[in-house]
Amino acid sequence: MVELVSKTQSFDGSQCQYRHRSDVLDCEMQFSVFLPSMAEKDQRFPVLYWLSGLTCTDENFSQKAGAQRMAAELGIALVIPDTSPRGDDVADEEGYDLGKGAGFYVNATQAPWKAHYRMYDYVVEELPKLIEANFPVSDRRAISGHSMGGHGALTIALKNPQRYTSVSAFSPICNPMACPWGEKALAAYLGQDRSLWEAYDATALLSQATVQLPMLISQGEEDQFLQEQLKPNALKAAARAAGYPLKLEFHAGYDHSYYFIATFIEQHLRFHADYLLHID
Amino acid sequence: MVELVSKTQSFDGSQCQYRHRSDVLDCEMQFSVFLPSMAEKDQRFPVLYWLSGLTCTDENFSQKAGAQRMAAELGIALVIPDTSPRGDDVADEEGYDLGKGAGFYVNATQAPWKAHYRMYDYVVEELPKLIEANFPVSDRRAISGHSMGGHGALTIALKNPQRYTSVSAFSPICNPMACPWGEKALAAYLGQDRSLWEAYDATALLSQATVQLPMLISQGEEDQFLQEQLKPNALKAAARAAGYPLKLEFHAGYDHSYYFIATFIEQHLRFHADYLLHID
Repeated sequence: MVELVSKTQSFDGSQCQYRHRSDVLDCEMQFSVFLPSMAEKDQRFPVLYWLSGLTCTDENFSQKAGAQRMAAELGIALVIPDTSPRGDDVADEEGYDLGKGAGFYVNATQAPWKAHYRMYDYVVEELPKLIEANFPVSDRRAISGHSMGGHGALTIALKNPQRYTSVSAFSPICNPMACPWGEKALAAYLGQDRSLWEAYDATALLSQATVQLPMLISQGEEDQFLQEQLKPNALKAAARAAGYPLKLEFHAGYDHSYYFIATFIEQHLRFHADYLLHID
Repeated sequence: MVELVSKTQSFDGSQCQYRHRSDVLDCEMQFSVFLPSMAEKDQRFPVLYWLSGLTCTDENFSQKAGAQRMAAELGIALVIPDTSPRGDDVADEEGYDLGKGAGFYVNATQAPWKAHYRMYDYVVEELPKLIEANFPVSDRRAISGHSMGGHGALTIALKNPQRYTSVSAFSPICNPMACPWGEKALAAYLGQDRSLWEAYDATALLSQATVQLPMLISQGEEDQFLQEQLKPNALKAAARAAGYPLKLEFHAGYDHSYYFIATFIEQHLRFHADYLLHID
């Protein structure tokens, strides 16, 4: 089912890369898993799913965020999927913001994308099923991500609040219906009918949310994409109107890079730990 | 003199990339600097120089080691040079282990390399002069590095013990005269006379050292290059014979990657802090 690609020790745990055949995406996929060292046999860890941004694979977060240090200390497993279907058979486009590396965590309905681009179902259903069947993890899940992956984390959590204890994001695309990255991707994957885009827009989804999840968003003030692409204040306004408990924090001096994520990943892991590790 | 290329906040400090014209290397070079936030105006930080391994630039350590967290906390600046001269005029070779990205921290004497490949003089003389003239740092220096850069750190410190308070290395090439990477590079840069190679071989240099520096080496036991290329036990034998206080630590499960560096960089920074921050 899953084939080990590479394995090494990282902090007090193991960092591994796996390959598997995805039915949902109809292609071979790679993902990374960090597992803390086990204090006891039969120990099962809760999982933080991390969704990466445009152009990324499972390796960027694994190599640059330094998340393993706190994940090991807190006893949280990390699962990091790729950002799109992959392989020679999979449709692609020249730009970095559509096609491979840019799946936007949606189920595409338009040709040529609909054949493989079903990252929403992959992240919500297929991957957790695979993880929970093959690794020493529990079914307690949290979700986070960066930029396009922050958009993915927010929309997936808002649509499936029963599946996650908490959600967070770094520099997320908060209102993709109203920014160039989002408009390009949603038009390509979902077609021109904008009313269908609302199902993948965190700001639209939050306005209609009936269940509230703990939600933390971190945003760098020197982020070069802040004004044109990310629009956290649109989400903030929606949260205020809906009485949704969004914790949105701005940080002076930080840009859109992994330096920002590395700095605040400890805070995000501790935030999720409060819910992941809490036994009802 | 130095031109800012990029700047962002990272943990409690600033991570910057600079460009400058190197007289020693006769080309344009890039390097990275991390400076902790200043508690007081006129504060000057001691510096840890980090030398990277084959194929790297100044970005690998900056992005993957997570060193900024502890450097900020301890009040140590980080300076990360590139691993070779760069540019269209600079000689190169197809392999990853000679030419660009593989300067080996020597002064080449052989054509075509001798025109630019003087990384030894660059790291020992030119770069510290530039750093100390342009940044809020003191003249207290430590040096560390990984793989080829571990070789660079060890050889440079052994040849210049008066310039550094302490030296450390991750997975260093300890005896380049006796391994394929070292034999290829030293023959190309220095010529066939092996007696001239001893000036850049940590094991040979340590045997003749008259001044002893605090020295820490960390080595992963699952490192794929351990047996053929790195040979830490040759250095250990030389240290034992010479009564040199080498602290060599093996770690089960870790490979040659930055996951290993990220895990133990805190220990190395605390090790250097004991000497860098100690006022005689």
